[in-house]
Amino acid sequence: MSKKSLYIIVAGCGRLGASMAGFFSKEGHSVVIIDKDIKSFENLPPEFTGFKIQGDVVELENLKNAQIKKANVFLALTNDDNTNFLISQVAKNIYRVPKVVARVYDPENIELFESFNIDIICPMKLAMERLIEEFKEVI
Amino acid sequence: MSKKSLYIIVAGCGRLGASMAGFFSKEGHSVVIIDKDIKSFENLPPEFTGFKIQGDVVELENLKNAQIKKANVFLALTNDDNTNFLISQVAKNIYRVPKVVARVYDPENIELFESFNIDIICPMKLAMERLIEEFKEVI
Repeated sequence: MSKKSLYIIVAGCGRLGASMAGFFSKEGHSVVIIDKDIKSFENLPPEFTGFKIQGDVVELENLKNAQIKKANVFLALTNDDNTNFLISQVAKNIYRVPKVVARVYDPENIELFESFNIDIICPMKLAMERLIEEFKEVI
Repeated sequence: MSKKSLYIIVAGCGRLGASMAGFFSKEGHSVVIIDKDIKSFENLPPEFTGFKIQGDVVELENLKNAQIKKANVFLALTNDDNTNFLISQVAKNIYRVPKVVARVYDPENIELFESFNIDIICPMKLAMERLIEEFKEVI
């Protein structure tokens, strides 16, 4: 893996956000994680050495405090599809973050995100695909 | 895909369970879905033509009503790791269902499931792996 250090903003400190923040931090990147619930930061693994911002990700002030202008990567990983849609649009089109990925909770929303050219990650869809593969082994 | 028709039991009619039940049903397999919450059946897609059992999957009576002895495949897809662990053990070791897969919600539980030789599906882990791949593209 390259030694280039990236500036990464992770919105949402649930299981996925916290794990990814820990991973990137361990890899030597600068990570800022934002969540409105201060308790969510307890999900962060010990290897996380980045910054934590307690605040609502849909408030631009919090994105500015996270220095979104400097970000190379923005991950919208909250548990709410509407929030992820909104903030990934802001990161991509207003702040021109080069790499933006949004979590999609409900697979039915994938099309909407993709129609706005947002890169997505949908755990449920990945699980369905994997199960269908597994299933092919038994028939 | 083979034309062999399978008898598949899906425990848990959340987003993942309902989608998989719809998929298998559409593929021409016999599917029984079990959930204690009758409202959860609203998640089922129109292509689902199988049976619905309203009841707690941890009650053996419900598994017997689902004719678990006949099952070729048992999918433990509730939102609760403890439940999935318990019922997949029952399906595998008591009823000798040939193919058992359990959903693991919290990646920290994967090791436990695997130590009991239970095949698992962990949407969160799949998402983490995929995000790490995506990330490699930008560095």
